[in-house]
Amino acid sequence: MSTGTAAAPTARAARGGRTPLRPHEDRLLPTDPGQRGIARRLYDQVRDVALVCPHGHIDAGLLARDTPFTDPAALLVTPDHYVTRLLHAHGVPLEQLGLPAAGAGAAPPREVWRAFCARWHCFLGTATRGWLEAELHDVLGVRLQPSEQTADELYDQISHALAQPGLRPRALYSSFGIAVLATTDDPADDLRHHRTLAEDPSWSGRVIPTFRPDRYLDAAAADWPAALQRLGAASDIDTSSYPGLVAALEARRAHFRANGATATDHSARDPRMAFLAPADASRLFDQVRRGEADAAAQRLLSRQLLGEMARMSAEDGLVLALHTGVLRNHHTPTGARFGGDTGHDIPLRTEFTESLRRMLQRFGTNPAFQTVLFTLDETVFSRELAPLAGFYPSVYLGAPWWFLDAPRAMRRFRDAVSETAGFYRGAGFIDDTRGFCSIAARHDTARRVDAGYLASLVAEHVLTEQDAADVLHDMHDAQPRTAFRL
Amino acid sequence: MSTGTAAAPTARAARGGRTPLRPHEDRLLPTDPGQRGIARRLYDQVRDVALVCPHGHIDAGLLARDTPFTDPAALLVTPDHYVTRLLHAHGVPLEQLGLPAAGAGAAPPREVWRAFCARWHCFLGTATRGWLEAELHDVLGVRLQPSEQTADELYDQISHALAQPGLRPRALYSSFGIAVLATTDDPADDLRHHRTLAEDPSWSGRVIPTFRPDRYLDAAAADWPAALQRLGAASDIDTSSYPGLVAALEARRAHFRANGATATDHSARDPRMAFLAPADASRLFDQVRRGEADAAAQRLLSRQLLGEMARMSAEDGLVLALHTGVLRNHHTPTGARFGGDTGHDIPLRTEFTESLRRMLQRFGTNPAFQTVLFTLDETVFSRELAPLAGFYPSVYLGAPWWFLDAPRAMRRFRDAVSETAGFYRGAGFIDDTRGFCSIAARHDTARRVDAGYLASLVAEHVLTEQDAADVLHDMHDAQPRTAFRL
Amino acid sequence: MSTGTAAAPTARAARGGRTPLRPHEDRLLPTDPGQRGIARRLYDQVRDVALVCPHGHIDAGLLARDTPFTDPAALLVTPDHYVTRLLHAHGVPLEQLGLPAAGAGAAPPREVWRAFCARWHCFLGTATRGWLEAELHDVLGVRLQPSEQTADELYDQISHALAQPGLRPRALYSSFGIAVLATTDDPADDLRHHRTLAEDPSWSGRVIPTFRPDRYLDAAAADWPAALQRLGAASDIDTSSYPGLVAALEARRAHFRANGATATDHSARDPRMAFLAPADASRLFDQVRRGEADAAAQRLLSRQLLGEMARMSAEDGLVLALHTGVLRNHHTPTGARFGGDTGHDIPLRTEFTESLRRMLQRFGTNPAFQTVLFTLDETVFSRELAPLAGFYPSVYLGAPWWFLDAPRAMRRFRDAVSETAGFYRGAGFIDDTRGFCSIAARHDTARRVDAGYLASLVAEHVLTEQDAADVLHDMHDAQPRTAFRL
Repeated sequence: MSTGTAAAPTARAARGGRTPLRPHEDRLLPTDPGQRGIARRLYDQVRDVALVCPHGHIDAGLLARDTPFTDPAALLVTPDHYVTRLLHAHGVPLEQLGLPAAGAGAAPPREVWRAFCARWHCFLGTATRGWLEAELHDVLGVRLQPSEQTADELYDQISHALAQPGLRPRALYSSFGIAVLATTDDPADDLRHHRTLAEDPSWSGRVIPTFRPDRYLDAAAADWPAALQRLGAASDIDTSSYPGLVAALEARRAHFRANGATATDHSARDPRMAFLAPADASRLFDQVRRGEADAAAQRLLSRQLLGEMARMSAEDGLVLALHTGVLRNHHTPTGARFGGDTGHDIPLRTEFTESLRRMLQRFGTNPAFQTVLFTLDETVFSRELAPLAGFYPSVYLGAPWWFLDAPRAMRRFRDAVSETAGFYRGAGFIDDTRGFCSIAARHDTARRVDAGYLASLVAEHVLTEQDAADVLHDMHDAQPRTAFRL
Repeated sequence: MSTGTAAAPTARAARGGRTPLRPHEDRLLPTDPGQRGIARRLYDQVRDVALVCPHGHIDAGLLARDTPFTDPAALLVTPDHYVTRLLHAHGVPLEQLGLPAAGAGAAPPREVWRAFCARWHCFLGTATRGWLEAELHDVLGVRLQPSEQTADELYDQISHALAQPGLRPRALYSSFGIAVLATTDDPADDLRHHRTLAEDPSWSGRVIPTFRPDRYLDAAAADWPAALQRLGAASDIDTSSYPGLVAALEARRAHFRANGATATDHSARDPRMAFLAPADASRLFDQVRRGEADAAAQRLLSRQLLGEMARMSAEDGLVLALHTGVLRNHHTPTGARFGGDTGHDIPLRTEFTESLRRMLQRFGTNPAFQTVLFTLDETVFSRELAPLAGFYPSVYLGAPWWFLDAPRAMRRFRDAVSETAGFYRGAGFIDDTRGFCSIAARHDTARRVDAGYLASLVAEHVLTEQDAADVLHDMHDAQPRTAFRL
Repeated sequence: MSTGTAAAPTARAARGGRTPLRPHEDRLLPTDPGQRGIARRLYDQVRDVALVCPHGHIDAGLLARDTPFTDPAALLVTPDHYVTRLLHAHGVPLEQLGLPAAGAGAAPPREVWRAFCARWHCFLGTATRGWLEAELHDVLGVRLQPSEQTADELYDQISHALAQPGLRPRALYSSFGIAVLATTDDPADDLRHHRTLAEDPSWSGRVIPTFRPDRYLDAAAADWPAALQRLGAASDIDTSSYPGLVAALEARRAHFRANGATATDHSARDPRMAFLAPADASRLFDQVRRGEADAAAQRLLSRQLLGEMARMSAEDGLVLALHTGVLRNHHTPTGARFGGDTGHDIPLRTEFTESLRRMLQRFGTNPAFQTVLFTLDETVFSRELAPLAGFYPSVYLGAPWWFLDAPRAMRRFRDAVSETAGFYRGAGFIDDTRGFCSIAARHDTARRVDAGYLASLVAEHVLTEQDAADVLHDMHDAQPRTAFRL
């Protein structure tokens, strides 16, 4: 057997060293001379607009406790599956990136940081690199590119910076200019951190929860029965029957609304929903709960429960955000060792036209109902999502998300949807971040790309510059507020 | 229950007022300085070429009677589902847009027009806005953007203009420079308007019918039996048997050909066709007609009948235009109240490679047969349509159509197909319009975009400017004439 | 019946004549003034880097024998299905293009050449035209565009040139600067030509075989039993049992490795693989071989055999190149007359996320295993391939291939994958050629496009010019060497 031959030496490998880190003032703006000036002016008008953050994965406890970040690996590498996945693809085992493996110690953070810096060129061209360059430079004060040679120096510099008060979470919230930040929370969560913040007189920010019930709806999961029990405990409602589960979910939604939630969020494998008669739903629930159902019946129950979410949204007004079309934990052995969200969730072809029809026939023109549709399958942008948002008043176009939350992908999204749905059926940008420090950089990227996109239309005389300025401002302020009812 | 919260105030909402309407001379041409000059020269050579219109939805009676248009709402808003769909998405019920609802009066046209003008910013970035700006400016003489403030003034100005002889349908036909206009007609239509025009010595235009038999082929529709009866009456052939239906369709095709038709047009849900043995087809027909067939059998019969259309095309030479891949009347309640073509037809993923294989094995290299393939699913442009048109002499690439009949989508189409199929396997542009006044604007948009596309290739030294000029002229003259046998 | 009406006269048809052929020095580079200078500098640094050719369809015997090419039709038209398919689409029967039909003589080469030259404008905008212009100008010394008027003159000029020693295959190999050339070979091939070259002291090139076992894996093909017998004869192993077939395949792989092979290549209809228990596989094999299996069982066996290829790759280290997603011989009558690879292989929608999951769970993180994934379905670039290559160290992104091996398609590929997977998970360019003379032109096209793509990122301040230069060099040297273990 010939084991893996060594990789050919790269041109890049010979270089490295100490090169300056200088994000350019005009980065991501169009290079066409007729467009760049317009883009600059548009961008200048929106760069400092307060950040509306309707979807992300920041822990409210981070702000409630305001604990300092510790080191660059824990801040920028280990918790970010955008970063760890590509390092893994370049041959670094996840345990060497600080991920705790079942039955093994994680690597020390300085080693993690070195592994990352030595492969910094692997991120060239990725959205992640752009965010990281901005974070390193603008937030952490770094002026050198990461490399094998600079790894230790940067590690020490960043660790020192993180100990300063200006880089604690609440200070960053303020210096980033965040207007509102939605977290993503388990329905059984008591939301104590949200309450702590709301009741803290020294805190003037707005941090709201989002109701994310995936594990209670996924009737095929091994831990679904345990999840039902946890929900029962949290709601003090017996969840051993279908009406009980529905009542518990309704109760927890009310709890979330009382704590400021305006939306629910769902990551089903596909967006299909079912609307069974109550007796049929109960019978199906009982069958699944007794372990007597096949995969199809489990899936049907999951779809029925997602349909209940739509029904509840039409009643309580929580916006239904759908993030569908991913095969989670593609590489089972990695999932078993390191858990979920470890970089091997892979998108799937997705369909909305038929899948959402029954739901939209019920609730699509109901003024109380609103949904925001996200996809990882670009092919539905022009074919399905823009036409749906171009008719149903309840349907908003979600921003390009995950794998597509990058400059060129964002342009393709605008190209694909705007000519059918215009600019006022979109839900604006979401940062969807797991890294607090990247929030400003992500919004800034989107504002640059949107400014450039609109500048291209101004230069082609499709829009006036005044119209473009209004649209750009609305994209980053009124649209997400309207779509998510913030 | 929290009913729909109010939308956040938009930057745009604060503005409005009286802004000039001035479509720019260079609109939609590339902004790159090396490309724009070339694009201008190319566009100048093709801007006044007579319009070839092989597919659209103009009523021949409009030209036969030459009745004046009445008011801007009836001209530009109510009959155009591109316009009403987006207004509906922004919360305007269809009855307020002049659509006659079952059991309710439609809004007066001035109210419709006001509702439209107040939401003019919702069309920013859409293809519709571009067409409307050109129509308003070039055809109707409007010099102000629609807005809440200008709505009444524009209503009066346009209503007055429409009463002038230069804006009657025949005058517009002439001033637009239309060479040939194909309508879309029911096979049971007696085509009297087409004959009126053909026999009118004062009329020198060319208006030809297109055979559109959808309702006679859709064996799953509730009104299919009634349709068969109507076709029997029109053809004087008993359609209660499969051979009878086939004979009646053949007779009506002959009638259409005698009145100038060169093509048939089909809007099946997918392009699949069946070719059963005659006895099997008869048996299937009888079963469906007796109401004893399930959905699969109904679909099979529809596919068989579409297959008959291909067979007839190979015999009588009518070009088979396939407009497939749409789920009609997505929102059934709206369909029930307002009928079809009311803005909620939503595209579906489409497949051609396998679906058309049996048909192309039969007729694909038959010189009498020609087909033009349209799609709303961009993914098949490079993957299926260009390769098919790049081998089969009978297959022509239909222009980007509906939802895709917009500048950026047209560029994506050219990008996706030209490198495989070149420029001489395309069927040119179709305006597909329901608004007579928009015909010139739509062709002009396509010519600008095509000029810009070719200019980019000239600037990249892929084509010479002379080759590009020839290609551009052919795209808008020889290609549609050849593909549709005009 | 109205037979095919004559095509409308084209603007192009009126022209023709004697126009100069002058491929521009800056062709395919971006036209944006801020980008072109950068692109030129990047391109200059890579234009003369030795060509790495890990996949193509050159016959090793061509180099072993070093026979001169005879005439322009045999060199540029008849063997190239890119060329013949488009001429066929323009109404030229394949027999008039020199393809030997069952029971009929092929046209003489001068007639073939005339048919091609008269339709030279049909290739405008295609990738093929770009390659041909470069070949004609740079390799064959032609200075006039092909046309009806120049056909005979060019025929004579090229035929004369081909007789010169500088245009014999070995001389071209050297003047093209080829570093390594992989051929595509039948497992039963004795590889005598590869050995001849390896043992020839006067030859310093590197020509290596690729193991391409399609016909032995396709259990649904009519000639599969005969193929098994041939493989048995070549390996001297009884292939009438499943273990025998597996052993024979392993033996042939060893033979290929001993002759320099580093990869296997597979053109299944889809990339799905099966991993049955040995006893089940044997039972299935026996059933299929006895002719007692239905289509589903045949397909399962084919997938099982493809799974064996992956397993063997994980053991012997041959890189598994997957070229899937084509419906071969779409037009059966043409296939029956002219055989395969005659221009009517049409791409199919393809799926990787689920299809490859079981294989990647087995081998995806095995350091001995490597795979390169190719597709004709652009929709999987961003949705599936980049995410897979962005996690699995064994997965490399294949270059855009066939129908997509053209400038704009290459840019779409880079746009779609780079933001997720960066530049260091790609397998570089493959020329995939059947025409020896086109090798340099194809690599040059890719280098120009990649230089332009990277220049756009430099101009947008996403990369530094130094980083871009490193990336470009690696794309055309280190990456293909690493991905294909050359």
